[in-house]
Amino acid sequence: MAMPSSSVLFKKNIIALSRYFVLAVGLAAIMIVTLPGLPAQYRILVTATLWCCWGFYTIELAVRAWRGRTPHGGRIYLLTSSGIIDLLAVVPVPLALWIGVQADIAWLLAALWLLKLAPVIPGLSLLGRVIEMEARPLASVFVLFLTVLMLSAVALYVLERAGQPDHFGSLPQSLWWAVTTLTTTGYGDAVPQTFVGRLIAGLVMICGLGLFGLWAGILATGFAAEHRRRDFVRNWELVTSVPFLRNLDAPSVIELTRLLRGLDLAANTIVIRRGRPGDCMYFIAAGEVEVRIEPKPIRLGAGSFFGELALLDNSPRTATVVTTVASTLLILDVSDFRAFTAHHPELAHEVEAEAARRRTGHQDHTSHKNHNES
Amino acid sequence: MAMPSSSVLFKKNIIALSRYFVLAVGLAAIMIVTLPGLPAQYRILVTATLWCCWGFYTIELAVRAWRGRTPHGGRIYLLTSSGIIDLLAVVPVPLALWIGVQADIAWLLAALWLLKLAPVIPGLSLLGRVIEMEARPLASVFVLFLTVLMLSAVALYVLERAGQPDHFGSLPQSLWWAVTTLTTTGYGDAVPQTFVGRLIAGLVMICGLGLFGLWAGILATGFAAEHRRRDFVRNWELVTSVPFLRNLDAPSVIELTRLLRGLDLAANTIVIRRGRPGDCMYFIAAGEVEVRIEPKPIRLGAGSFFGELALLDNSPRTATVVTTVASTLLILDVSDFRAFTAHHPELAHEVEAEAARRRTGHQDHTSHKNHNES
Amino acid sequence: MAMPSSSVLFKKNIIALSRYFVLAVGLAAIMIVTLPGLPAQYRILVTATLWCCWGFYTIELAVRAWRGRTPHGGRIYLLTSSGIIDLLAVVPVPLALWIGVQADIAWLLAALWLLKLAPVIPGLSLLGRVIEMEARPLASVFVLFLTVLMLSAVALYVLERAGQPDHFGSLPQSLWWAVTTLTTTGYGDAVPQTFVGRLIAGLVMICGLGLFGLWAGILATGFAAEHRRRDFVRNWELVTSVPFLRNLDAPSVIELTRLLRGLDLAANTIVIRRGRPGDCMYFIAAGEVEVRIEPKPIRLGAGSFFGELALLDNSPRTATVVTTVASTLLILDVSDFRAFTAHHPELAHEVEAEAARRRTGHQDHTSHKNHNES
Amino acid sequence: MAMPSSSVLFKKNIIALSRYFVLAVGLAAIMIVTLPGLPAQYRILVTATLWCCWGFYTIELAVRAWRGRTPHGGRIYLLTSSGIIDLLAVVPVPLALWIGVQADIAWLLAALWLLKLAPVIPGLSLLGRVIEMEARPLASVFVLFLTVLMLSAVALYVLERAGQPDHFGSLPQSLWWAVTTLTTTGYGDAVPQTFVGRLIAGLVMICGLGLFGLWAGILATGFAAEHRRRDFVRNWELVTSVPFLRNLDAPSVIELTRLLRGLDLAANTIVIRRGRPGDCMYFIAAGEVEVRIEPKPIRLGAGSFFGELALLDNSPRTATVVTTVASTLLILDVSDFRAFTAHHPELAHEVEAEAARRRTGHQDHTSHKNHNES
Repeated sequence: MAMPSSSVLFKKNIIALSRYFVLAVGLAAIMIVTLPGLPAQYRILVTATLWCCWGFYTIELAVRAWRGRTPHGGRIYLLTSSGIIDLLAVVPVPLALWIGVQADIAWLLAALWLLKLAPVIPGLSLLGRVIEMEARPLASVFVLFLTVLMLSAVALYVLERAGQPDHFGSLPQSLWWAVTTLTTTGYGDAVPQTFVGRLIAGLVMICGLGLFGLWAGILATGFAAEHRRRDFVRNWELVTSVPFLRNLDAPSVIELTRLLRGLDLAANTIVIRRGRPGDCMYFIAAGEVEVRIEPKPIRLGAGSFFGELALLDNSPRTATVVTTVASTLLILDVSDFRAFTAHHPELAHEVEAEAARRRTGHQDHTSHKNHNES
Repeated sequence: MAMPSSSVLFKKNIIALSRYFVLAVGLAAIMIVTLPGLPAQYRILVTATLWCCWGFYTIELAVRAWRGRTPHGGRIYLLTSSGIIDLLAVVPVPLALWIGVQADIAWLLAALWLLKLAPVIPGLSLLGRVIEMEARPLASVFVLFLTVLMLSAVALYVLERAGQPDHFGSLPQSLWWAVTTLTTTGYGDAVPQTFVGRLIAGLVMICGLGLFGLWAGILATGFAAEHRRRDFVRNWELVTSVPFLRNLDAPSVIELTRLLRGLDLAANTIVIRRGRPGDCMYFIAAGEVEVRIEPKPIRLGAGSFFGELALLDNSPRTATVVTTVASTLLILDVSDFRAFTAHHPELAHEVEAEAARRRTGHQDHTSHKNHNES
Repeated sequence: MAMPSSSVLFKKNIIALSRYFVLAVGLAAIMIVTLPGLPAQYRILVTATLWCCWGFYTIELAVRAWRGRTPHGGRIYLLTSSGIIDLLAVVPVPLALWIGVQADIAWLLAALWLLKLAPVIPGLSLLGRVIEMEARPLASVFVLFLTVLMLSAVALYVLERAGQPDHFGSLPQSLWWAVTTLTTTGYGDAVPQTFVGRLIAGLVMICGLGLFGLWAGILATGFAAEHRRRDFVRNWELVTSVPFLRNLDAPSVIELTRLLRGLDLAANTIVIRRGRPGDCMYFIAAGEVEVRIEPKPIRLGAGSFFGELALLDNSPRTATVVTTVASTLLILDVSDFRAFTAHHPELAHEVEAEAARRRTGHQDHTSHKNHNES
Repeated sequence: MAMPSSSVLFKKNIIALSRYFVLAVGLAAIMIVTLPGLPAQYRILVTATLWCCWGFYTIELAVRAWRGRTPHGGRIYLLTSSGIIDLLAVVPVPLALWIGVQADIAWLLAALWLLKLAPVIPGLSLLGRVIEMEARPLASVFVLFLTVLMLSAVALYVLERAGQPDHFGSLPQSLWWAVTTLTTTGYGDAVPQTFVGRLIAGLVMICGLGLFGLWAGILATGFAAEHRRRDFVRNWELVTSVPFLRNLDAPSVIELTRLLRGLDLAANTIVIRRGRPGDCMYFIAAGEVEVRIEPKPIRLGAGSFFGELALLDNSPRTATVVTTVASTLLILDVSDFRAFTAHHPELAHEVEAEAARRRTGHQDHTSHKNHNES
């Protein structure tokens, strides 16, 4: 229940949004500064904007380096991956200007600001893991790719160099054709003209589709496996924060963990809309929601559940439910709910008992628990 | 058994088909009206057609708005998503004409009629759900996509702007090249000429395939999961309408629900063709079928099953079966039938008992049930 | 055990190969006949070849129509799908020539000979079934595709028609651009030049990748499911022809059927090569194999199994095994063998007992069974 | 425990790296030698490099042929697939030069050196197996591909040859257009201009996406299945080398084998980093690791396990673990660990007992086992 209070969460959101805004403005400015016919007064304005963004990142780096002195216990912040990204955002541009690089080229180094997105996106480490896990088959496909590339380039060089010395006059040129063809990009700057050359080109295109299909298949397989694994680890932690679910025996908890899906919601998000058909129930792992029923709304905190009525009697949603603070919910779909309760009727009984209590208006003990957090 | 009668279904089909027809005619007219060399008399004809389509949608909107006053209980039809689509089909064109927009540009707004397809296709909400569920990994791939885009554009700008100021003279131009290359579209309007530029371009193409493979993999995984979930919810409802299946205990019903596949058929569709090999049996969730056997055909209504003989003795189909009204069937494949009955012999016994009864000609109680519906 | 004798199989292979040869020669001739600068004497030769192929198909049609009179029981051969394909291969060309169509155009109708491949390839019906099963989501993606196509074409028509009236001067032209871009084909004949146009074009390309990813995902999911189903039906029939496996109880047979993979082999194919590591065992569903051991080779007929020694003691293959006639084998992989025998030790015991018998040289009862077929 | 000593492994790595280096240098030299404007002195240098690489491969072939005389027992090394690759790397170039082929063309045959990568990459045989297993559906898609190709080429030939005799003047030319379009390569050298031609072209592009999606789906399905099978076979062998796991009953070993993932690590690789969150535990199938704890590090050899503490109490890693020699580890993820121990509490008890012993410092019996190997 170590839940951050809503004001802290609000502050965090503002900071996150402002960081995205600075990044977007910065990248736009980098692009504008390269336009050849830009009038001088605009150029000054854009350069000023770039320096502002740079200032923002310099301050951010300073604050983080200051904070990061102690907690890592000997490990200095600037040596972490996050610290290196912060350094790469601040150091290169002034360094390049100081060395004497032309201003518009130096500012291109500010494209490194894009790396700021890396730690924000949790999926990147997931992708890295998938590629690590499937390294062998991916490498095999890559070797096949290189082999087809080389052999077709050699063949086309032999066949086409007499007729088109400009496009197939050397092996590197022929390789350029091969890579644009094998990836089915097809610029059309170099096109084989001989009959055998075109036959080979057709085969290369078909190989391209095949290799790409293999690539997609390997990545899809690896991704599905890794995704499932991550979800389990995350959901396991969330399940242990719901007392209601902890009462189940160990194999059931494992089974339920596999069925649940985690969902992070911002404050004031509508979870359930009254009158809509219900296809899942929710457990609150962290945060708080408000059930908007008459005469006065009820608040449910971490460890509670809601949305079970629609599953029990197939009725539409009877009330709108809104998050009051940023919350993490666990979703149990109707299909999984029915499959699970068919084998574990005790959960169904407990959910029904709680539902019956709610129908007769005894939710007071749940609704007061998290009042101090709103 | 709340099954609509066949005449209502027939009327519904006619309306649906006429709506598709109006849409097709309307879209064709929008295209024709933009042809530069169109003679004046044709232009008048096409414009008249467009106004007819517009009139159709206006009437549709009026009828729906009138009907939609009460049932939604306070919620006005025009504020639902369906109502907004209807409004977007009717309001923009006259509004644009009234403001003074040129006629052929104003009619382009009629392309919004395509949105009329949105509620017709049930899969669109499915796609939306998949994208919502897989938002994190999809966002990660998108960030990777943006990073490769930006870095390669910067690199090519530096490398190629001296040689090709027309195509790589500014960062936005270079980005245009990067996006056509990374998506393997390859227009060929801008092609790198330097050796390092081509090396980077080759890597960008390969990255494009990889990113696209990840994208396809994520969507495929999410799609498969969501599809399964939907089918379960739908089949669960259908299973409860087949009395024969409701007698099973809860875990068996769950298991069977996972195995069944729903199938919606129009009236007078051939379900089984005599003499063909049989690879599945059918339960009727709604509707009615006619089994064409000698001396006179038999009608089976909701709750009955057929096609089980071919599974029991591996024989070809002994009779042709045709739907008499629009029907919803549940298909149980031979593999699933055998797997299920291996663990639940009671279902096999019941199916065999019913099959034996049928062979000896006692199907009368089933055949009369739905006579009033044909 | 209704196994065709080897001489019949040999005749069938010759006929199948000759049909492929005629098709290949015919298609090559169709192509050559269209070459503009073809000398007259070659043209006569090629036309003669075409008439020979046509004669082959005419005779084939006549033979099949004659044979097909009775067995279908009232259904005439020419009305089956196979009969229609045969008719389409024979009738159109002379009909076109008789009407007065130019010879080289009339022969293009011979491209319909390609349809002859349809019944040969069993997977085509599989593809048809997948597309039927997944019709809804595929239709949804197609509607999305059409929507993006139409909206982007309208946007580019508005933005680009002033600057490029040749390429974006009408909506159909703009749609042509949209379709080449959304499928990431990218001919490069029409390229947007305005900034907003290129922004939209970039989004269209990304949408193209996304839609294509969805498409691939849906087809992959459906394909995997349907493939599994077919294999089960086929393997079930094969399992019932192996007496050894029929002794298992029903759930075990189901489980084993799921694990087995069918494999059709021509006569004189090497199944196992001596000295190689062994990763599977084989059951013979139909046909016969020769185990090349000293002092004299042993023949195993339908219902026998082989290759189990390598699984039992992890040793390399002790003998080369070759099919004597066209055979159908069932493969049980080592992983599945171990997983299955862990739960069903009785199979392992039987396999071990048989293996022990073989080691001590008592295979005589099996080796004589199919001698008359070799 | 037949583990090669670390010095042998080190020597092997050096040889492998030097082989990759020779290959890279050789391929670069082949490319450079084809550059038209290469000065004579550079040409001599590059040719010398090529002869050096050729010499390397000749020596390699000689050494292998000498070694390979006896162990294969009658089978000569030069007739194995590996021997043929070695021959193809050495024989063609001098042969071509001797026949009198021009030097720069003769050296193109050195592109066959790429085949040297084939045996290095284990995934190639996997790909071959997948394609063999899925041959039928892949062939079906290929036939569909050919049919669409042929029919669209015929249609475009009829429609476009009048307007564009240069690009659609014969069926082979039209087929070239069809193949570049159906694979969505889109060179743009031949573009249909008629309305119907463009309509058909649009359909061909959409078919291309569809066929490619099918292709990717089939390969992905087959790949996932084959990958799982291989992993099982490999892990099964590794599991039998861990005494701790062999104590489980047969079905549990099967289940555990499915859950484990093998991981090959070079010497001195960090397996676990102190302070990081722990999401898996490790079993040592072969090799040795060093657990860097105070006061002195502990060495664990084959058959031991580590990393279990983080799973038992959800704490971060308490020590850094490094391999001392090239090792093979089996990874058990936290999700699988919990799922497995929920059903097999005895494993959890044993792991906990061992963990308790370690916490109180009794690891001496494990730490001494493999001292002689470091």
